[in-house]
Amino acid sequence: MNKKQTCTFEWVPDRSSKIPIYRQIIHFISTQIQSGAWEVGSQLPSQRDLAAKLGVNRSTITTVMDELAADGIIESNFKGGTRIISNTWALLLSEMSIWNRYVNLGSFKSNHAMIQAINRLEFTPGILRLGTGELDPTLFPTELWKKSLKSLENIPSLNYLEASGLYQLRCAIVNHVKKFGIIATPDQVLITSGSLQALQLLSVCILSADSVVYTEAPTYLRSLQIFQSAGIRLESIPMDEEGILHHRIPISAKSTKILYTNPTNHNPTGITMSNRRRKALFEYCAVNRIPIVEDGAYEELYFDEQSQLPIKQMDQNGDIIYLGTVSKTLSPGLRIGWVIASEPIINRLGDVKMQMDYGASSVSQWIMTEFLNSGMYELHLERIRAEMKNRRDHAVRVIRQYLGDQVSFRTPAGGFYIWMRFNKKIPLLKLFEEAVKAGVLLNPGDIYDDAPTNALRISYSYLSGRDFEEAVMRLSDIIKKWT
Amino acid sequence: MNKKQTCTFEWVPDRSSKIPIYRQIIHFISTQIQSGAWEVGSQLPSQRDLAAKLGVNRSTITTVMDELAADGIIESNFKGGTRIISNTWALLLSEMSIWNRYVNLGSFKSNHAMIQAINRLEFTPGILRLGTGELDPTLFPTELWKKSLKSLENIPSLNYLEASGLYQLRCAIVNHVKKFGIIATPDQVLITSGSLQALQLLSVCILSADSVVYTEAPTYLRSLQIFQSAGIRLESIPMDEEGILHHRIPISAKSTKILYTNPTNHNPTGITMSNRRRKALFEYCAVNRIPIVEDGAYEELYFDEQSQLPIKQMDQNGDIIYLGTVSKTLSPGLRIGWVIASEPIINRLGDVKMQMDYGASSVSQWIMTEFLNSGMYELHLERIRAEMKNRRDHAVRVIRQYLGDQVSFRTPAGGFYIWMRFNKKIPLLKLFEEAVKAGVLLNPGDIYDDAPTNALRISYSYLSGRDFEEAVMRLSDIIKKWT
Repeated sequence: MNKKQTCTFEWVPDRSSKIPIYRQIIHFISTQIQSGAWEVGSQLPSQRDLAAKLGVNRSTITTVMDELAADGIIESNFKGGTRIISNTWALLLSEMSIWNRYVNLGSFKSNHAMIQAINRLEFTPGILRLGTGELDPTLFPTELWKKSLKSLENIPSLNYLEASGLYQLRCAIVNHVKKFGIIATPDQVLITSGSLQALQLLSVCILSADSVVYTEAPTYLRSLQIFQSAGIRLESIPMDEEGILHHRIPISAKSTKILYTNPTNHNPTGITMSNRRRKALFEYCAVNRIPIVEDGAYEELYFDEQSQLPIKQMDQNGDIIYLGTVSKTLSPGLRIGWVIASEPIINRLGDVKMQMDYGASSVSQWIMTEFLNSGMYELHLERIRAEMKNRRDHAVRVIRQYLGDQVSFRTPAGGFYIWMRFNKKIPLLKLFEEAVKAGVLLNPGDIYDDAPTNALRISYSYLSGRDFEEAVMRLSDIIKKWT
Repeated sequence: MNKKQTCTFEWVPDRSSKIPIYRQIIHFISTQIQSGAWEVGSQLPSQRDLAAKLGVNRSTITTVMDELAADGIIESNFKGGTRIISNTWALLLSEMSIWNRYVNLGSFKSNHAMIQAINRLEFTPGILRLGTGELDPTLFPTELWKKSLKSLENIPSLNYLEASGLYQLRCAIVNHVKKFGIIATPDQVLITSGSLQALQLLSVCILSADSVVYTEAPTYLRSLQIFQSAGIRLESIPMDEEGILHHRIPISAKSTKILYTNPTNHNPTGITMSNRRRKALFEYCAVNRIPIVEDGAYEELYFDEQSQLPIKQMDQNGDIIYLGTVSKTLSPGLRIGWVIASEPIINRLGDVKMQMDYGASSVSQWIMTEFLNSGMYELHLERIRAEMKNRRDHAVRVIRQYLGDQVSFRTPAGGFYIWMRFNKKIPLLKLFEEAVKAGVLLNPGDIYDDAPTNALRISYSYLSGRDFEEAVMRLSDIIKKWT
């Protein structure tokens, strides 16, 4: 193919047509390329020459070139020349789709490439998911579930609900959270489609592009783009074994800052904030007027006793926004979460929820009401706690056995996760790839932090004991080359 | 109360404290006010005097004043003086809540005041909802519903699903839309939490702050803030009885523009675009490269025969994004909608959905799969079409009888709505208020347009025939004073 070949033509736009001139020119050039008359690699005439030859303004030609370049048909080189880089009609049809240039136009960021890969690979048959933050599907309470369905037989209809969600469910949640010291009225509860929707609502309702969210380092929040997509900055605050180091949170008069914390069975480190630290953090934030969003996703997944109550329980003024969910305890597929906050906040979030998607499915809300009111949820929680405790013990034994001298970790007192740091520097991306080849899916620590972690988030919630052991064995084999 | 009284004090900040100086000053002033030492209405010393007396910088005082003003404690007057305007401790506790200033900070706009009022009033017991865009709850197919629940008894678990939704449901939707000429693969389908979530995803994925959305005038879209909150401009394109006047859509090289259209049983006018107009619109948009979002929410609610197929059915290149939902045909509470588009679009929307809320409830997705695959959905649709046709006939008779010479309207061939214009100018807001007093909830036309409409969106879908007649009778009584 002669790359120096220049495209020639004898054609001018039809000035009597209703089709705009620039559009006619684009159509003409596309057709020339599609038909093969103009080959890939050949040079287009200069913009000046094109304008003169077609009898149009330079600005019209600029519009044409911009559009063809945006569609990936032509490319400008550093010398100012323009070259055809694509010709297949299939390409013109698909990639030149009208939507082509729109796909990434919006403000919402794509997931990290690593997270996209994890989301995709999770559906690989047989892959061992060693970092997945979900309950093992075999722990789904089939018998209780069937019982709960009976409650659906007699529901009157499934029309739109109030902005804050099914009243009966809000009452059931008020009763439920009382068990761990949170006092609220049904008007202070908003049902969301999982906690994720609660975060999404916060990002567009009460935070703005110049807001700062302080949060633990590492944090689950880093693995999402919700806040970042709204232009909100995340700032990492270090943790010790008692939780976030509150005195490291910067004090300033800048008013649009909040603290997002996940104090109990923290994702991904497994740390539970001590009572002493909770009190100090609460006071520090009150004095410095830093509003708190407390994520209680793993609140009730303690293994021995519930020695830490939520920070929200100290809050007399409605200054803490508390997030709850059943995604980690019962089923993420129900898409049921809740926000507990003061009424102005609930009303604002509810109003926006009504405009976005009307929130959670009524079916899910009725089922969850039944689960809570019948005592089935409490019964199920007890089983899950016992099961997770066994799995944690097993996981700790297995990791000590196969990776003992190569890693350091704390034994979590609840939740799903072991934050496993490698004692020697390990190339995490390489490790991820090798593990996938060996049929093991990992959650590298770096997706939860803005600094290198040299750690993995290990989850004992998803795999059976045998599969967990198998996965750790394979991991230990891969690690050998670096240790 | 002596408004000229000036606050005096003998106090200085503690420079050895860890609490920032400005925070100490705010606390001091708040306490003075709370204790009654400084009264509401009294003047604070000038900022200069305060700074000197407290031994701090002017900028520190500015910070203090800004914060107290933001919390509604003080107010500056036009002469530069500062006055205490609030003192109750209750206020300090609730309205001075840490979150107070955050409530409306976010980018997402509040609903129109009118829509907020409608959303609230809908839950008034006994109110007759003459404009509600929902099916009458008594039409909920209780028997079919119970049958569909059987399918839930044996689902394996309810964990997170793939980004695009339950595979079985996507296959069922592919089969279903084939009936009206849309050819798609399961990979070209995304399940959303209602069509509203689809719009929300479009607003943050493929449109940006400088995008323009062309749409019918009037349009349901105006009653939402989804696009406007993302900084996207809506531009109204007039309609005639055949639908949107496509040649009125501006042509420009500006690439970030789309057309949103609801061609079949349009909300709120009830107009169905003619086949001739569909073809012309499709060609106009193809030539001018205006991507189309086609909302098919009322697609299957035709009364006589389905004489118009979706515009999407002409689309060979994946250039049209098609939105479907069961909210208007079966149940809005299921929160099931779908997007049919080319794979790059589906992947992009799915990726963001995973970050926002993971989408629709799995329970709802399994139920809907059963409804579609068993033929129950088709059966239910037939019943709803017959019922709506009867209700439309009845509604037309009732309106003619009670409001005959005072209004003009077209008889819709499907859907839920009659767009009822008053022949004389009526003050719609006043009408809305009087109607509420008379126990009738209206949807004034102006919430669907940026120009005055002098119309109401009347819906025959929600009220029984008797209630509909009662509501129209009351409306006709209220109208009398203006006609």
